[in-house]
Amino acid sequence: MGKIYVVGIGPGGPGDTTPRAEAALAASDVLVGYTTYIDLVKDRFPGKELIATPMTTEVERCKTCRDLAMAGKTAAMVCGGDAGVYGMAGLVHQVCRDCPEVEIEVIPGVTAATAGAALLGAPLIHDFAAVSLSDALTPWETIARRLELAAEGDFVLCLYNPASRRRPDTLRRAAELLLRHRSPDTPCGLARNTGRPGEESWLCTLGELGEQRADMFTTVFVGSSRTQVLNGRLVTPRGYEEKGTL
Amino acid sequence: MGKIYVVGIGPGGPGDTTPRAEAALAASDVLVGYTTYIDLVKDRFPGKELIATPMTTEVERCKTCRDLAMAGKTAAMVCGGDAGVYGMAGLVHQVCRDCPEVEIEVIPGVTAATAGAALLGAPLIHDFAAVSLSDALTPWETIARRLELAAEGDFVLCLYNPASRRRPDTLRRAAELLLRHRSPDTPCGLARNTGRPGEESWLCTLGELGEQRADMFTTVFVGSSRTQVLNGRLVTPRGYEEKGTL
Repeated sequence: MGKIYVVGIGPGGPGDTTPRAEAALAASDVLVGYTTYIDLVKDRFPGKELIATPMTTEVERCKTCRDLAMAGKTAAMVCGGDAGVYGMAGLVHQVCRDCPEVEIEVIPGVTAATAGAALLGAPLIHDFAAVSLSDALTPWETIARRLELAAEGDFVLCLYNPASRRRPDTLRRAAELLLRHRSPDTPCGLARNTGRPGEESWLCTLGELGEQRADMFTTVFVGSSRTQVLNGRLVTPRGYEEKGTL
Repeated sequence: MGKIYVVGIGPGGPGDTTPRAEAALAASDVLVGYTTYIDLVKDRFPGKELIATPMTTEVERCKTCRDLAMAGKTAAMVCGGDAGVYGMAGLVHQVCRDCPEVEIEVIPGVTAATAGAALLGAPLIHDFAAVSLSDALTPWETIARRLELAAEGDFVLCLYNPASRRRPDTLRRAAELLLRHRSPDTPCGLARNTGRPGEESWLCTLGELGEQRADMFTTVFVGSSRTQVLNGRLVTPRGYEEKGTL
């Protein structure tokens, strides 16, 4: 019986991939993944069998890994960022639910939330909520409810998949919901193509957030009531200043 | 003028540290950090100047980095996991607020949330909230309110700092609050010493969560209403099954 490694390669180039992830790719017979992620690693593994599939074929891609493992191979499901945050780790377990003999090992990676946060400063230092704005698999009502409750709880928000060609207005709609609970002056930040060519990041206020350029390669951060801009960086305090120790 | 690298070394051994983080440590004149984290890296950098300080001296530790940078040195603030999630990245920016000439670069790492999740299966596949149960710097009322709102929003919860010797009952108190909104059957998981000697992980239900052994080296996961146990792993579906594609 073979094995499936579900590997998070981090946000970008080889500098962001952990040695454990690199070793799992090296130990695999076949690298399976979304074309963009296979392109990021293939030059490091010349001669390795590659199966690159386009977006929206996630279920098929996981079944390919399962079938390879059933045939005695070691397959790596290559994911961007961390495989367990809006990645393929869940779906691999789901498609293997009737094949308990297939060993599945998830190798964690640096996720877009923390990589984007590092670029912008330190917005996620205190309690935060991650919400995907994609309504492809989740009803918008669920997304909207989570945004409002997270805002009410004064969580820092990290928004994945803020907009796409099919839904150019989801970030604007999210910003409108958040403005019901947070000041328009709330500092926000956006990180795009983190760790890859074309990397960029910029700040804005919640009042300006709805008008920002955002796409599937962008991660958006909305501060809590405590988040500040210090020397051009987005920083959420942990609370040391209130204890009089800062 | 010197520079400060704020470096997330990941959850455990060298296999979890990215090449970018490793390179930042190598490029630094001095490695500064909490004793536990300095111990994890010091053997890889023989001869490097080390400043290891105990818990509760965080402000002083960050000021040490600032003063080293002001003196023209390159200092690495070494953090476990990711430096930007309950780490030192925020405090470094805060203590340098009046020294804009000090360059600060945050190097992201694999955080306890995603490393623990990988060990348990794939609990964080969909929207989640991270909450620290430590009331050292945050009033318990704020923590309690966030727990209840996150539970109401059906977020998966990832709890950092679930208990300590000083507050042995915070996980029990948190579980009681969550039980107001979630079924006692809700699957939960705990990961302890992730990536380090003594690594362990186990599952329980929300009804059993309050009685679990937990300490400052434990990360706790509480499922959403959708989270399942599949072949002994904690898995939150993304929604493919509802679209009929699984």
